[in-house]
Amino acid sequence: MHQIDVKAGLLEPNDAIARENREFLAARGIYAVDIMSAPGSGKTSLLEWMLPVLAERYRVAVVEGDIVGNADKERLDGFGVPVFQINTGAACHLDARMVHPALHQVAEAGAEVLLIENVGNLVCPAEFDLGEDDVVMLLSVTEGHDKPKKYPLMFRRAGLVTVNKVDLLDRTNFDLAAATAAVRDVHPGVALLTTSCRTGEGIDDVIAWIEWRIAAKRAALQHAPIGAGSA
Amino acid sequence: MHQIDVKAGLLEPNDAIARENREFLAARGIYAVDIMSAPGSGKTSLLEWMLPVLAERYRVAVVEGDIVGNADKERLDGFGVPVFQINTGAACHLDARMVHPALHQVAEAGAEVLLIENVGNLVCPAEFDLGEDDVVMLLSVTEGHDKPKKYPLMFRRAGLVTVNKVDLLDRTNFDLAAATAAVRDVHPGVALLTTSCRTGEGIDDVIAWIEWRIAAKRAALQHAPIGAGSA
Repeated sequence: MHQIDVKAGLLEPNDAIARENREFLAARGIYAVDIMSAPGSGKTSLLEWMLPVLAERYRVAVVEGDIVGNADKERLDGFGVPVFQINTGAACHLDARMVHPALHQVAEAGAEVLLIENVGNLVCPAEFDLGEDDVVMLLSVTEGHDKPKKYPLMFRRAGLVTVNKVDLLDRTNFDLAAATAAVRDVHPGVALLTTSCRTGEGIDDVIAWIEWRIAAKRAALQHAPIGAGSA
Repeated sequence: MHQIDVKAGLLEPNDAIARENREFLAARGIYAVDIMSAPGSGKTSLLEWMLPVLAERYRVAVVEGDIVGNADKERLDGFGVPVFQINTGAACHLDARMVHPALHQVAEAGAEVLLIENVGNLVCPAEFDLGEDDVVMLLSVTEGHDKPKKYPLMFRRAGLVTVNKVDLLDRTNFDLAAATAAVRDVHPGVALLTTSCRTGEGIDDVIAWIEWRIAAKRAALQHAPIGAGSA
């Protein structure tokens, strides 16, 4: 109970700041997606595949969340888009307060699409709304098909779940049908895709989903097409 | 800073209870190892390999930590050793307070070796001493060799790090030499092994390490050999 009380105390101000962040992004027509997963599920690799495509179509920025270091930022720095590093230090997740200053930098950089890579953690990031429009989460086949039932919150937060590393399906006992059923059981409405960041399989589908969501936000805001000003 | 203050407030009472747990275990000659990793790195599979061997040599008990459900307990229930389930609910890790009642059950069951499977999380469990004698952690090759530098705390807590799923080395870009260097960089004194819970490779080495630690505790306690009373 002690822990639950403390967390409730932490979540309330987070939600207030997340609302501010959401208004800040909406006022500028910026679409933001928060990418979450366990460590090593392929978040940075997914970004490496998507950035060249998305950066041709939109002004893109990235926010990198890591406890320490900037190894992922270094992987992404060569893609010609601004990458802003947040080190969370003692915290095992991004929260709305940490992200807030970065949103100002993202807006100053003129970005219209923001890709946020959260800290690799299948639990805590799901508890903290950042003000993003969507959550995309990765479940890699090497983690096992039992994960949706063991870590339901993140699967419920996600608008899109992609089952990643499907190139390793033949070398694991991952049951794609069981995983699909488990994901749908904890979150009936979720979009579900399969990807491999080794072969590139399915990456186009993830990009298409994100572009659909960008267009949906644009329509909802009755804003000028946010891709219109792209270089 | 807010978060750091809150965590400091949480950690102090945890450490006091962890001390109590450690004294409780020492008074009964029970050796306890806390097994940690990211989700899906192979903790339960490692237990499935080790339990038949360890249960022949010691009276063994297991404590299973999960946010919700008892899927792992169900996997282990057939091994003829008592398995005690802890559901952490809102918490993303075990702490000393949660484990305390289970230690009484473990002692009542007459166990002399306790294997604790922590919640799958590469971050938070490392912050909470349970009163265990040792931490064993798994890093699976599919997670990537960059993890020790990105999540240093757990690698520092571990007495033994095993690089798991080495049967998949040929299908990943995991660099074992780089991983070894990174682990040694964040924790110079750590024991480092390689395992596959698919093929069984290296499991004997993990068991040997744990048996060495059991013997070391026995010697330190100047206690009757804790394997002596085994059925």
